Amino acid sequence: MSTIFSKIISGEIPAYKVAEDQEFLAFLDISPLTPGHVLVIPKKETDYIFDIEEEEYMRLWSFAKKVSKGIKKAFPCRKVGIAVVGLEVAHAHIHLIPLHQVSDMNFQKPKLSLPAKEMEEIALNISEAINETHPNE
Amino acid sequence: MSTIFSKIISGEIPAYKVAEDQEFLAFLDISPLTPGHVLVIPKKETDYIFDIEEEEYMRLWSFAKKVSKGIKKAFPCRKVGIAVVGLEVAHAHIHLIPLHQVSDMNFQKPKLSLPAKEMEEIALNISEAINETHPNE
Repeated sequence: MSTIFSKIISGEIPAYKVAEDQEFLAFLDISPLTPGHVLVIPKKETDYIFDIEEEEYMRLWSFAKKVSKGIKKAFPCRKVGIAVVGLEVAHAHIHLIPLHQVSDMNFQKPKLSLPAKEMEEIALNISEAINETHPNE
Repeated sequence: MSTIFSKIISGEIPAYKVAEDQEFLAFLDISPLTPGHVLVIPKKETDYIFDIEEEEYMRLWSFAKKVSKGIKKAFPCRKVGIAVVGLEVAHAHIHLIPLHQVSDMNFQKPKLSLPAKEMEEIALNISEAINETHPNE
């Protein structure tokens, strides 16, 4: 069965995309923990991140690193945190979260809900920051 | 200044080690979120994980994957979750946490404190499970 993320990849469901290549896609978490919270997914659907084939798994982390540089540039923060939980959507996804304090990484706290116009601007800012960091890619 | 993790690497501070190679070390988090919670660190001290040189960064994730297989074998769980926060110790470290429910990944909740004998057994079980999964490495 196709997950919601596969529907985003196919374009069936819209998303605020920030980076994309042949294998991977990065887009805003629709319910962010902090503004600039991004999800990175492989286009090939695998439930558990550690089941992804070794070479693809490493390219996924390399892609996430590029995205994180753009997030940090667009959303200055102490660090961009990483989380992979994977109990709710059966399609491996990496959370990249701008962190100002430890409590920012808490999936139990109420999520933000930002207006569409603000989400669009955030996605554009991160996307541009990624391109500035990696101008030839 | 040497972090607590560098002191663990040098042997100045003891730790419940579960896996080690020339570049990386995995040991039990002394204040686990769930039993089997492991920290993976590069021996070379870098504060921010995304500042680690690309090739080493990818080998770090590859090492974490091997460790996660051992954790899941020794501590059956829905998934081994990943978290990198990095606001407390200035030495990049990956949390690998056996997850049974989403709330298991919450750094705000009270940590466990397990007796030394139990920590020793947990470390031994994970270490053996890693070796069984990767007998030739």
